[in-house]
Amino acid sequence: MIYETIVTTCSAEGDVHVAPFGIQWHEGRVLIMPFKPSTTLQNILQTGFAVLNLTDDVRVFAAAIARKAAFATEPVTTGQGVRLKDCLAHHVLSLQQVDEDEARPKLWMQVVESASHAPFMGFNRAQAAVIELAVLVSRLHMLPAEKITQEMQYLQIAIDKTAGPREQEAWQWLVDCVNNHLAQQSGMQQA
Amino acid sequence: MIYETIVTTCSAEGDVHVAPFGIQWHEGRVLIMPFKPSTTLQNILQTGFAVLNLTDDVRVFAAAIARKAAFATEPVTTGQGVRLKDCLAHHVLSLQQVDEDEARPKLWMQVVESASHAPFMGFNRAQAAVIELAVLVSRLHMLPAEKITQEMQYLQIAIDKTAGPREQEAWQWLVDCVNNHLAQQSGMQQA
Repeated sequence: MIYETIVTTCSAEGDVHVAPFGIQWHEGRVLIMPFKPSTTLQNILQTGFAVLNLTDDVRVFAAAIARKAAFATEPVTTGQGVRLKDCLAHHVLSLQQVDEDEARPKLWMQVVESASHAPFMGFNRAQAAVIELAVLVSRLHMLPAEKITQEMQYLQIAIDKTAGPREQEAWQWLVDCVNNHLAQQSGMQQA
Repeated sequence: MIYETIVTTCSAEGDVHVAPFGIQWHEGRVLIMPFKPSTTLQNILQTGFAVLNLTDDVRVFAAAIARKAAFATEPVTTGQGVRLKDCLAHHVLSLQQVDEDEARPKLWMQVVESASHAPFMGFNRAQAAVIELAVLVSRLHMLPAEKITQEMQYLQIAIDKTAGPREQEAWQWLVDCVNNHLAQQSGMQQA
């Protein structure tokens, strides 16, 4: 079972990195499988720590995919990294074991500290639509234009019916990514 | 903005009713718009109370739609109703105002008591797919067979990639509903 989360890490120099990650829980441990090379992988191997942020603010996911400015972070109380300032819960994770792999090593992380900050509000279909479009946008270069447009039209229904301002904003950032991509693609075909 | 939640109510005689509801928050109050006639509407008007349950167990939604046995409830500490035994958070709501309407009266509810029970685990694409299929199943009689099959195939992708056992079970209940519906429909066309 895969949960879509935000992983925050720091470099040895203290530079903060915010990245969406699909993670798994296995018997109390968190499994993260970052691609090689990636800032998250490098940071976790260097510092031995990461923070798992559980947020329902889909703008954080969309901002990372659309390369907008990252959302605010603050140090965790244990000092071992930073967490999203606004999130529903976070877990500080310590690296326990690395299963090497050419493409995606498995990082097994142990929970060091957990805290809840706000209750779950319920499912929101627009939030789910933003997450789906974020997945789509991260794979734009592999998909035909027709499929992208079709899926976006389908997901738009939930946005129109159930979105709040945060979901609208995140959706628009991702739609802009799609439109830029399609414009570039059609430009290349004409050339 | 609409959140998909579970509303639990009791009749004057104490019979428990569990129903999925898309609710809205407006300046600290909860707006519920049940259709006429419905057990939830009748119970809230009779008792003046409802409990808003925030759960990530999509089986509770699927069970209500597929008419499976309802999930376990327990009395809230204030005594004004029951909540889902397993949920991430709940709010006890008191009826404050009714805006009458022929089809869907607006019930404005005030929060009497709130409690968090477990932290948000992150977005799960399979949970969102179950919610979408639950919406679809609740509208089966209004939709052409082709649209139903197409959407179900699209949603199946997230199930295959990201579901856990709870999501698989909920998904299967809803798929059975769709298949029964399509079989009945094709039966009627043959007759």
